[in-house]
Parts: sequence; structure tokens; C-alpha cells
Amino acid sequence: MTTQEVANALVKYCSEGKFEEAMKALYSPDIVSMEAGAPPGQSRESKGLAAVKAKGEWWAANHEVHSTKVEGPLVAGSYFTATFKMDVTFKPQSRRFTMEEVAVYKVIDGKIVYEEFFYSM
Amino acid sequence: MTTQEVANALVKYCSEGKFEEAMKALYSPDIVSMEAGAPPGQSRESKGLAAVKAKGEWWAANHEVHSTKVEGPLVAGSYFTATFKMDVTFKPQSRRFTMEEVAVYKVIDGKIVYEEFFYSM
Repeated sequence: MTTQEVANALVKYCSEGKFEEAMKALYSPDIVSMEAGAPPGQSRESKGLAAVKAKGEWWAANHEVHSTKVEGPLVAGSYFTATFKMDVTFKPQSRRFTMEEVAVYKVIDGKIVYEEFFYSM
Repeated sequence: MTTQEVANALVKYCSEGKFEEAMKALYSPDIVSMEAGAPPGQSRESKGLAAVKAKGEWWAANHEVHSTKVEGPLVAGSYFTATFKMDVTFKPQSRRFTMEEVAVYKVIDGKIVYEEFFYSM
């Protein structure tokens, strides 16, 4: 798949809330995922599909998603970008809030090998 | 200005090739600019408006721009993203090529305080 095709597929999966399916179909085993920040003592970076899936599973288990809006993708060479706006409740605190973030992805040989998220904390 | 207004203004300036005017109007004195890579011994990061302007001046002096296409912006919270596709000639080597990059910007108090560029090298 081209970068554009991977980008279109990711946006479609995520718009439908199918984050796990997106990883399974589109992510490289060697994916590196970078958050804007991390709790003290933890890393911003997750390496490898197992670690990135585990991060996604923690997130899914701890948040109720009321709505997801994905805009983009914009594609440039082997990179693409999209924005995510999610209305969610963090279940352990019953706290409802809107997440807004810019995401950047790198594609090599039809698989996403790097993702980075930009948001204010 | 809101993040959306800053984003719209930046895209308009850059689409018209007015990169220096964009910096003057929209960049914080404390801007940090991050490239995808740097030559050996040099930093990916430029700090402060003078350093970032100097990087822009070097670029403008060494490239002839045949066309510029900017797509976006997509805005999420205090961040926005856009893509740049430029057909340029690197003048010292008379080498014509297409630059394609994803750019991410952070806005605080109506000024761009951070920019990062993603491209393959």
C-alpha cells in the first residue's frame, strides 16, 4: 500500500473506533509510538507492537468513548498527519473531557513504523 | 488570535511564499524549531527568533522555489498541522527536487512557539 492508502485506511478504522483492528492491519512489528508526555518515571516512547497494543488496551479499558472525530489525512512523502477529537470519560475518575491531538505517522513498505502525538497537558 | 486563526494565517503566508513575513507576524521570540535531521555536528533544534530567521535566510538564499503547495491546516487544541510540497532547486548544486514534509506547530497566546518538520532524508 502507498502512504496515501495506509493513511486513508487508518483514518477509516479510527473514525469507526476500530483502533485495535487498525494496529493489526497497518502497524509494523517494529512500531515506535511517542506520546507528548509520560507520568514521572515512565517513558514517552513505546517500542514494538506488543507494547503499543498494551498501551491501547489500557486506554480502551479506562476510557468510555462518546464520540470520535478524525480529520485528514494530509500526506507528504512517507509521512502523513491527522487530528483526533474524542469526547471521552476517564472511567476511574468518572471524568468526562475532550481530547484533541495532532498525530504524525511514518510509513515504510506499506506499514506504519512510527507515530507521534501532540497535545497539551 | 486563536490557534485556527494563526493556522489559517500561516498557511496563507506560506502558500504565497511569504515565509519571512509569516515569522515576523506569527512567531514568538522564544520559538523553537526542530528539523527531522541535521548535518553531523549540528543540532536539529534552533532556539529563538534570530536563529530560526537565520535558518530561513540560509534556506531562501540557497534554493530557487519553482512552486509551493500547502495543504491544511488541521487544528487540534493548541496544535495544528499542515503539509508542504515544494518544487525547488538547490542552487549550489543546480539540483532540482521535490520537498515533501509534514509540519506540526504549537500556539500559545496567539503566537507560534514550536514547530517540527517530518520528512525522509
